[in-house]
Amino acid sequence: MAPAFVPNGTLTSAPVAGRFASVYSEVQNSRVDHALPLPSVLKNAFTIVDGPRSSAAGNPDEIAKLFPHLFGQPSAALVPSDSHVAQPHHVLKIGVVLSGGQAPGGHNVISGIFDYLQERAKGSTLYGFRGGPAGIMKGKYVELTSEYIYPYRNQGGFDMICSGRDKIETPEQFKQAEETAQKLDLDGLVVIGGDDSNTNACLLAENFRSKNLKTRVIGCPKTIDGDLKCKEVPTSFGFDTACKIYAEMIGNVMIDARSTGKYYHFVRLMGRAASHITLECALQIHPNITIIGEEVAAKKLTLKNVTDYIVDVICKRAEANFNYGVILIPEGLIDFIPEVQHLIAELNEILAHDTVDEGGLWKKKLTDQSVKLFEFLPEAIQEQLMLERDPHGNVQVAKIETEKMLIQMAETELEKRKQEGKYKGEFKGQSHFFGYEGRCGLPTNFDANYCYALGYGAGALLHSGKTGLISSVGNLYAPVEEWTVGGTALTSLMDVERRHGKFKPVIKKAMVELEGAPFKKFASLRDEWALKNCYISPGPIQFAGPGSDAVNHTLLLELGAQA
Amino acid sequence: MAPAFVPNGTLTSAPVAGRFASVYSEVQNSRVDHALPLPSVLKNAFTIVDGPRSSAAGNPDEIAKLFPHLFGQPSAALVPSDSHVAQPHHVLKIGVVLSGGQAPGGHNVISGIFDYLQERAKGSTLYGFRGGPAGIMKGKYVELTSEYIYPYRNQGGFDMICSGRDKIETPEQFKQAEETAQKLDLDGLVVIGGDDSNTNACLLAENFRSKNLKTRVIGCPKTIDGDLKCKEVPTSFGFDTACKIYAEMIGNVMIDARSTGKYYHFVRLMGRAASHITLECALQIHPNITIIGEEVAAKKLTLKNVTDYIVDVICKRAEANFNYGVILIPEGLIDFIPEVQHLIAELNEILAHDTVDEGGLWKKKLTDQSVKLFEFLPEAIQEQLMLERDPHGNVQVAKIETEKMLIQMAETELEKRKQEGKYKGEFKGQSHFFGYEGRCGLPTNFDANYCYALGYGAGALLHSGKTGLISSVGNLYAPVEEWTVGGTALTSLMDVERRHGKFKPVIKKAMVELEGAPFKKFASLRDEWALKNCYISPGPIQFAGPGSDAVNHTLLLELGAQA
Repeated sequence: MAPAFVPNGTLTSAPVAGRFASVYSEVQNSRVDHALPLPSVLKNAFTIVDGPRSSAAGNPDEIAKLFPHLFGQPSAALVPSDSHVAQPHHVLKIGVVLSGGQAPGGHNVISGIFDYLQERAKGSTLYGFRGGPAGIMKGKYVELTSEYIYPYRNQGGFDMICSGRDKIETPEQFKQAEETAQKLDLDGLVVIGGDDSNTNACLLAENFRSKNLKTRVIGCPKTIDGDLKCKEVPTSFGFDTACKIYAEMIGNVMIDARSTGKYYHFVRLMGRAASHITLECALQIHPNITIIGEEVAAKKLTLKNVTDYIVDVICKRAEANFNYGVILIPEGLIDFIPEVQHLIAELNEILAHDTVDEGGLWKKKLTDQSVKLFEFLPEAIQEQLMLERDPHGNVQVAKIETEKMLIQMAETELEKRKQEGKYKGEFKGQSHFFGYEGRCGLPTNFDANYCYALGYGAGALLHSGKTGLISSVGNLYAPVEEWTVGGTALTSLMDVERRHGKFKPVIKKAMVELEGAPFKKFASLRDEWALKNCYISPGPIQFAGPGSDAVNHTLLLELGAQA
Repeated sequence: MAPAFVPNGTLTSAPVAGRFASVYSEVQNSRVDHALPLPSVLKNAFTIVDGPRSSAAGNPDEIAKLFPHLFGQPSAALVPSDSHVAQPHHVLKIGVVLSGGQAPGGHNVISGIFDYLQERAKGSTLYGFRGGPAGIMKGKYVELTSEYIYPYRNQGGFDMICSGRDKIETPEQFKQAEETAQKLDLDGLVVIGGDDSNTNACLLAENFRSKNLKTRVIGCPKTIDGDLKCKEVPTSFGFDTACKIYAEMIGNVMIDARSTGKYYHFVRLMGRAASHITLECALQIHPNITIIGEEVAAKKLTLKNVTDYIVDVICKRAEANFNYGVILIPEGLIDFIPEVQHLIAELNEILAHDTVDEGGLWKKKLTDQSVKLFEFLPEAIQEQLMLERDPHGNVQVAKIETEKMLIQMAETELEKRKQEGKYKGEFKGQSHFFGYEGRCGLPTNFDANYCYALGYGAGALLHSGKTGLISSVGNLYAPVEEWTVGGTALTSLMDVERRHGKFKPVIKKAMVELEGAPFKKFASLRDEWALKNCYISPGPIQFAGPGSDAVNHTLLLELGAQA
């Protein structure tokens, strides 16, 4: 057992209770003391080499206008330095912030930055901004010490300093951030977040640079959804752990389905708009049916199409006497179906202006297509659409329990086919939603190592004066020792979107590519998975022994296809 | 990777697809080849020693009448045999059946029986009855060979031969079982099941004995619910794994709750009537609130009392600025609340005879207390009570989503307190139900070892001619080598219940004892857990390294209290 310790004074007034390694589980404790390997480039003397001038993912002229000080800057690579030229040794003051939803490994990014400073810039200070970007604006921070960080090493969650969803956007908010940076005399800031947060990090870097502040800003790619990635940033951290946790659960449910022989389990998975998590889980476990939102959108499928696909498989399986199965559904499915989008837009419009009369006259304001879809929907979903609205009066799409909806629609369709003599099986649906279970798990060895390298690398980038880069660790197919470390110009990942008549910079969400290696592999196997039972139950994440060094399929397939 | 193999011919026509170790995950594969330790008494020569004459758990006179051939028989203990007196070497024909819901480790019980026969009664045959007791009645079986069993070793699920919920009860059914036993020339039958299945096993043993059939029957204690246990049978298999899987998930959710700081997670846990799983998870993870059904019943609490308890804690936490938390709710909660029981009984009566009028006149037939409760319930639950009925027209209590109901009731009460100025926090509830995820996981080292010993011991008991016993492995606090092995007279666990004017034998469900060590430990700590945050996140089950030999708290506390 690790020794008990009491967090330092700054924590006591915090809205979270501090961690005490003395009450950890055996597994947590073993992870706290687990030493992490570093890429060899970080273990020895290194120097930073700039690449060629960069452009943007789209609309470079607009991006150049939005980031006059940063646009075009090269990406940076850390390379071994033969000479014993000492790095510029100066003491640094660095801030770090967690932005957006939790992802396993966040604490390790912070540990990586901290250890870099301890080992390479002794005497430096690391401040953790509390509760996300709001902590920067309000100047809410804590000084991170060795003792403070210790119990969070290799642990899940973001509770070391907590996160938040605020953005630094208005001139007043930028002003607040400047004040904090100046008050703390910050040399640098690391923003750990997803696509929006990294876009925001780049705006902050541009702003600091334009004001001639010394504070540099480096981003780190975080999101379990897996939708922040590009050639230089092969994956976002947390995706590996979250997928393995979901795959463990679904793997268990699959074995249950086969053992019981009488349930269809409809499993909805977190992942927001993108279907990366669903695709990765499918590659890990081989379920009978997997719906990929991006494919539904590309093929312009209707809800009826999706239902028919599911029901067709169920009917074929019934002929083989398999009245059970497992079906994966991405959280964002509903967003990909054009007709549903239209219906929701029309409902938002109608409900904003009219009262809903019992007689259903309001329905006449819907287009024919939307009326048809509305009446196709199960009653419970109709009610959800009418009643559950967010504070702006809009339908809360994320709250729609797609898995339950599809069960009801399959039920109705199967009943119809039964009466037509086309289906003789028995159908019982069970619904599941996996989300929160995966965001704060103990990071896998992969995520633990990856995050530590991201953080350590971010420290190195700041130390050498870089700004507006996203920490980039590559060659992930190889052992950790051979991983590459560097930074990619955030502006090079950006495009613009037109909002309220203005161009807004955005890092485009990486959606599942239908021509990408992971989807193609899935597509080549799904018919076999549908009718035969090729179930794989990955089992719980292991930290030692067989399976403990496994890397997720998406990453391996994408790297393999690139190589 | 283990070599690929094709299951033998008997499997191809089966309603399940066989397992192929060649498509296993790395972790599954490592488990397939994982060698299990045996208690030392099973590794060497042993002899069986009978204990004193046994009685019954209650109403011994009635049990004696129901089991004239078996009542009073002693329990048996395997002890090391110094002499090299060879065991009666005869070749055996043994059947095995899985009965009821899945529990991790079932495949290992079968492996244990098989290995006993291979090692101690070479040339013996093991038949697996397919799909539960119905397989015995219909003579549906498969011969279990070394190749057939191999890919299921240390794997979760019951899909090797599948399970079923039928009981052998009527004279015709007993006749069918006799015919199968005679046709296969069975020396013995191992029934792997819960309390009902073991009662049934004893009736079968009595019936075979009364007909002078040679077929002996041995039971094995299976249920994740943990409600089949007694002094001689310290735990049922599967409980350890299931609780650890749920605790991993809830542990992750707790860290998420603390990181996000804005959700109360209401987690309902499987476990049928008893709250063992909920209690064990609480001991593992230290949630803020845990409802134990047995305590609710003993204290005759109302739904309002339970809601108030939850809301009181939420209000106190809000004062400390904690607007988040985790609340555990046992699946069987609703069954423990007397007023809910009354309401449901009255509704069943009314709905069986009357139509429900829109005007609500039907409500006048409810007692005052029930009207009050009905109107206290959230609308969605009212609807569920009125609409969701089983084929007999009864309310489906198990389908009531207690976690959602409690969220709504807490919401209403908190709103009220807010208006009274007694609560200033923000409340957002998130609901979870964990059940299927835990029934078919890869068994923990504990369950893998325990099940293997149970099966191996069952083989030994049958080999020495024992019948009507439940395989009993004890001293579980100690290393596997020191575990004790034997059999306990099933009649000694029985009492009678009066049903339809007749006495029916039952093994009483072991409920959570409010004077037992696990509950007392929980009760002594829960106030601290409620207000402080003492969260423990156990992490995923490990098969090697730290934590891999952990045993559940319930078992350790009960054994400790006994010692």
